[in-house]
Amino acid sequence: MANETPTTGLELRSLVKSEGVLELSLAEVPVAAPGPDEVVVRIEASPINPSDLGLLVGAADMSTAVQSGTADRPVVTASIPPQFMRAMAARTGESMAVGNEAGGVVIAAGSSPAAQALIGKTVGIIGGAMYAQYRVVRAVECLVLKDGATAEQGASCFVNPLTSLAMTEVMRSEGHTALVHTAAASNLGQMLNKICIKDGIQLVNIVRSAEQAKILREIGAVHVVDSSSPTFMEDLVGALVETGATIAFDAIGGGKLAGQILTAMEIAANKTAKVYSRYGSTTYKQVYIYGGLDTRPTELNRGFGMAWGLGGWLLTPFLQKIGAAEANRLRQRVVDELTTTFASHYTARVSLAGALTLEALTAYNAKATGTKYLITPQV
Amino acid sequence: MANETPTTGLELRSLVKSEGVLELSLAEVPVAAPGPDEVVVRIEASPINPSDLGLLVGAADMSTAVQSGTADRPVVTASIPPQFMRAMAARTGESMAVGNEAGGVVIAAGSSPAAQALIGKTVGIIGGAMYAQYRVVRAVECLVLKDGATAEQGASCFVNPLTSLAMTEVMRSEGHTALVHTAAASNLGQMLNKICIKDGIQLVNIVRSAEQAKILREIGAVHVVDSSSPTFMEDLVGALVETGATIAFDAIGGGKLAGQILTAMEIAANKTAKVYSRYGSTTYKQVYIYGGLDTRPTELNRGFGMAWGLGGWLLTPFLQKIGAAEANRLRQRVVDELTTTFASHYTARVSLAGALTLEALTAYNAKATGTKYLITPQV
Repeated sequence: MANETPTTGLELRSLVKSEGVLELSLAEVPVAAPGPDEVVVRIEASPINPSDLGLLVGAADMSTAVQSGTADRPVVTASIPPQFMRAMAARTGESMAVGNEAGGVVIAAGSSPAAQALIGKTVGIIGGAMYAQYRVVRAVECLVLKDGATAEQGASCFVNPLTSLAMTEVMRSEGHTALVHTAAASNLGQMLNKICIKDGIQLVNIVRSAEQAKILREIGAVHVVDSSSPTFMEDLVGALVETGATIAFDAIGGGKLAGQILTAMEIAANKTAKVYSRYGSTTYKQVYIYGGLDTRPTELNRGFGMAWGLGGWLLTPFLQKIGAAEANRLRQRVVDELTTTFASHYTARVSLAGALTLEALTAYNAKATGTKYLITPQV
Repeated sequence: MANETPTTGLELRSLVKSEGVLELSLAEVPVAAPGPDEVVVRIEASPINPSDLGLLVGAADMSTAVQSGTADRPVVTASIPPQFMRAMAARTGESMAVGNEAGGVVIAAGSSPAAQALIGKTVGIIGGAMYAQYRVVRAVECLVLKDGATAEQGASCFVNPLTSLAMTEVMRSEGHTALVHTAAASNLGQMLNKICIKDGIQLVNIVRSAEQAKILREIGAVHVVDSSSPTFMEDLVGALVETGATIAFDAIGGGKLAGQILTAMEIAANKTAKVYSRYGSTTYKQVYIYGGLDTRPTELNRGFGMAWGLGGWLLTPFLQKIGAAEANRLRQRVVDELTTTFASHYTARVSLAGALTLEALTAYNAKATGTKYLITPQV
């Protein structure tokens, strides 16, 4: 089938220019011939995750975005506030390919038996530069879907499924027995609910509106607390007492929420304390920040004793830490439950050019819970 | 010698009353007869550490303090702002004895050979209720000083020595090779410098004034940066590049300092980074908050990637975690180097009654670097 492989394909690019301008465009790039252990994947579907937007739009002020170019080859430019250019220094002047993960079909393969065995298979892949029509990847990195599964079903089989599975793994490995999650009505949050319901893990969902609470209750979530409610802290303490959760994964990052979670965990722990300790409870409380939906500073009043930790958390270092065998166990579970536990839902599908319209950019860059875009590069 | 043991002694007490008043006073309490494995220590000297003040003055507003009682039995009262009474709930109405550690002489012992062997020995002890004339403790918990060492020399042989030693132990056990310390001109900070110089550990000292920088340079500190300087961030990054320090112990707690340290570590790490990573460097950066000299909220702008941790840190859980053998190794080093590495310096000595004068209270409650009070309960 190698003779069917196109020699070039479109790829979405993000460029920060030294004069303080972000430029998004489509480039026609050569499709490399696969090495012996590599395959060429025709990408059918690639999601726009919050974790993609950092590279795609960087620190640009998208309210200044202007579209030019043609309908087939749109170009979007936006200005980057000068104070953020230092943070962009390492990528300035370098045209970056974007897109963490995708689903597609293997259309060509290198000479190795492992690579050849994948020809015609529908696979999920991860590794960047997925907002493109073709991608050359190592055969061993392909997650081969079950017969009948579509590329769209496999498009989001890494980031959200492995992140939500990893949260339960971290919970167990660090000695906790129940979990707190924020921005909990997100695609990832709904997936985490399905995992926890299936695995019998108690999960406290923190959402930001009554509508989001309703979404989660409808899929069977038991503990849902709404941070916009005047009784938020009482509700949260109540849920923590009931579940005993002492670890949280927080996608919000900024503002007071992480500290409020630690405070509520401390109050819950002290409800069962027998003696006064001037240093607070000895119950260890952990919050991992894995996103930054709120870009303001994180504010901690430290009214939660001394037995606490706050930290950044990312999937990739976690997978490296647990090793290949454990990581493969998690990946296999995703394949096995791809259309149930790990089913993703999209609100819109756009072509590569369609992803660079101001309308689409504004919609997916809002990172609103319930809005999820899928790029379909072959359309 | 048991017949020389007094039947009562003075003990300093701190009481939070439900009406929102703190009351400090001296109580005459019975000296219990020692159990078989216990000894009675005549306390000669006990330091007032920042870690004692949380229990001593709690959340009271000491600008409202009023003294009453007599010269021998002073009573100090101060009001507690209503918003802090919830945090005081667990201790309200209970008269609390105060004082973490002390040095003294064993004047009576229980029947066991281990206890009897301590009679007449000068010891360091820890465990609370040390602002008292006599304290009954378990024999195994006494740190027996070398012949010739005074009780005053042994008064501070736990909190600061073990805390500063523990910092270097944590540094090593968590895979770091150099250390950052804040409020670095404190007694503890000077001790940490002596340890690091002796052990060949690179230490970055963060101080808040030029005078404090001078104190540290005079005892041989190499890396001293002044957070009041306009070039603070550059200076800190420079010291981090030179030392490679990726772990900090922070006594300040509030404000931006902890976040600034993480940011400076990230900048230092990225100076050697080869490729752009949207998630920041992969160098893991850790700050432990072990004090709260600044009681404002901790503010983190999170401009330091995702490979970071912030947490509370206390000596006691650390000692429990490393186990008795390791803890004894650290304690023995303190005994061996009591008058060199671990020498403490005091700016004032006060009796139990003297500690309850408004003048003394104001001075030691300011927690000013360079000011250190010692209570001498036999005077």
